[in-house]
Amino acid sequence: MTLVGGIEAGGTKFVCAVGTGPHDLRERVRIPTATPAETLARCVDYFRNQRERVGAIGIACFGPIDLRPTSPTFGYITSTPKPGWQNVDIRGTMARELGVPVGFDTDVNAAALSEMRWGAGRGRENLLYVTVGTGIGGGVIANGSPVHGLIHPELGHIPVRHDLETDPFPGICPSHGDCLEGLASGPAMHKRWGVAGHELPADHKAWALEAEYLALGVATWIYTLSPERVILGGGVMEQAHMHALIRKRVRELLNRYLDAPQVRDAVDTYIVPPALGGEAGVLGAIVLALNSLS
Amino acid sequence: MTLVGGIEAGGTKFVCAVGTGPHDLRERVRIPTATPAETLARCVDYFRNQRERVGAIGIACFGPIDLRPTSPTFGYITSTPKPGWQNVDIRGTMARELGVPVGFDTDVNAAALSEMRWGAGRGRENLLYVTVGTGIGGGVIANGSPVHGLIHPELGHIPVRHDLETDPFPGICPSHGDCLEGLASGPAMHKRWGVAGHELPADHKAWALEAEYLALGVATWIYTLSPERVILGGGVMEQAHMHALIRKRVRELLNRYLDAPQVRDAVDTYIVPPALGGEAGVLGAIVLALNSLS
Repeated sequence: MTLVGGIEAGGTKFVCAVGTGPHDLRERVRIPTATPAETLARCVDYFRNQRERVGAIGIACFGPIDLRPTSPTFGYITSTPKPGWQNVDIRGTMARELGVPVGFDTDVNAAALSEMRWGAGRGRENLLYVTVGTGIGGGVIANGSPVHGLIHPELGHIPVRHDLETDPFPGICPSHGDCLEGLASGPAMHKRWGVAGHELPADHKAWALEAEYLALGVATWIYTLSPERVILGGGVMEQAHMHALIRKRVRELLNRYLDAPQVRDAVDTYIVPPALGGEAGVLGAIVLALNSLS
Repeated sequence: MTLVGGIEAGGTKFVCAVGTGPHDLRERVRIPTATPAETLARCVDYFRNQRERVGAIGIACFGPIDLRPTSPTFGYITSTPKPGWQNVDIRGTMARELGVPVGFDTDVNAAALSEMRWGAGRGRENLLYVTVGTGIGGGVIANGSPVHGLIHPELGHIPVRHDLETDPFPGICPSHGDCLEGLASGPAMHKRWGVAGHELPADHKAWALEAEYLALGVATWIYTLSPERVILGGGVMEQAHMHALIRKRVRELLNRYLDAPQVRDAVDTYIVPPALGGEAGVLGAIVLALNSLS
């Protein structure tokens, strides 16, 4: 298999690696996200200095990004709130500097692709990958390929049921207030309870409320996308009890209407944690690179 | 183009036709939905009695149905509440009796396919088609093909925000109570207001509430599916003012977060009525038949 390079491009750091898959992932480096010029120059240097030349690059990118190949700003980071990073031609820069094919997608679509290829989504062609952390975002695979469509899914920003009597917290999303991300991201938990989620004991009522919101999201996405498997990751989902709480509540919310044995009898293998853990991102970039060759 | 046959299989009637597309749709008949044996026998007779033999059949079917080609009940109507129609091998029966390829999908996926091929979704590969009438259902095209996944999308059953102070109506969905369909289908309107929707004047407060629920659904689906166009049809959407109310409210709910000119500047051409009207269903069956040949 051709050696390729991957860049997991995030708002705080870029992770670069070369390799061919999870059992052959080499030379990882972390580059702090500084100005676009400085950050991308360090990525270019990293790949140029590899002993073995890579045949392609993949970029799993924070967003929003432009994924329409016919668009004049294809491959750009577009309207991100991250200072200095609006309208940055990240894909074009890497393609010009390195002279190899460049695969490009959202960080979450890329993570979904890596879980489909090597992780918790193997053998599935319709997959949902959601990460609950600083924000709530998700990658969607439908009919075997990542969904882009109009822009790309923004799963965290769906409106959800919000009972102001039991939870008067107004939410923290700058655009929507109490959308799912506004109510249930890591920073939303921190703001509501005054401490970070990982400092709250497992029996704190915060977790039942958190599971309620995430279960509403998961039930909504299941009815809308009909995924063959739901992968829930991110910092908030590292709490050991969260998967069980969410599975139980999703089954209650679906209430047998969705008559699939995967949900009815085997929800433990239907809603699952990621198999690739923290490496799903950079491995997603490796998949994008491999896909750009075929 | 090969002459093919289409069956729009509904809970109250089956519509059969032969043709090749919207400008060549011949010999339509309506067959009341009686027992499976009687209904399917009449469909078989209809196609056998055509002067010209059809090269394939498409069935756009009410559900839930089994769409997994590897399943032992592939092509069956499965757990429908319609008496007598559980576990009916509709696809297999037509294939055996007529000896031609049979395309098979949900009625709403088929309608989405016909709108993509000949109607309001031309040129799009990611499309949402929703019908609001006796129920609320939708077809989803992603990456150029209908989404099946676990079963198929059940868009009407998503949980939605329900403010019991402004709308104490508990909803009528037997499984979920106040899911979107439970709150906003035609029968839900009828139950809440005591008269059918089409009897309510255009300035009745029912319509603002109806638009609110449907806009919550549309915003949720846009964030989840990222469709390039949203087609809203069905009896409830025939009220002339509903499209304008929903477009306005969807834009407010998205609140510029989704930075796409299609939504920001041209929502009138982004959220649209079907172009094929009442023929989308049987034309969808024709598309399924044509697709089964290629």
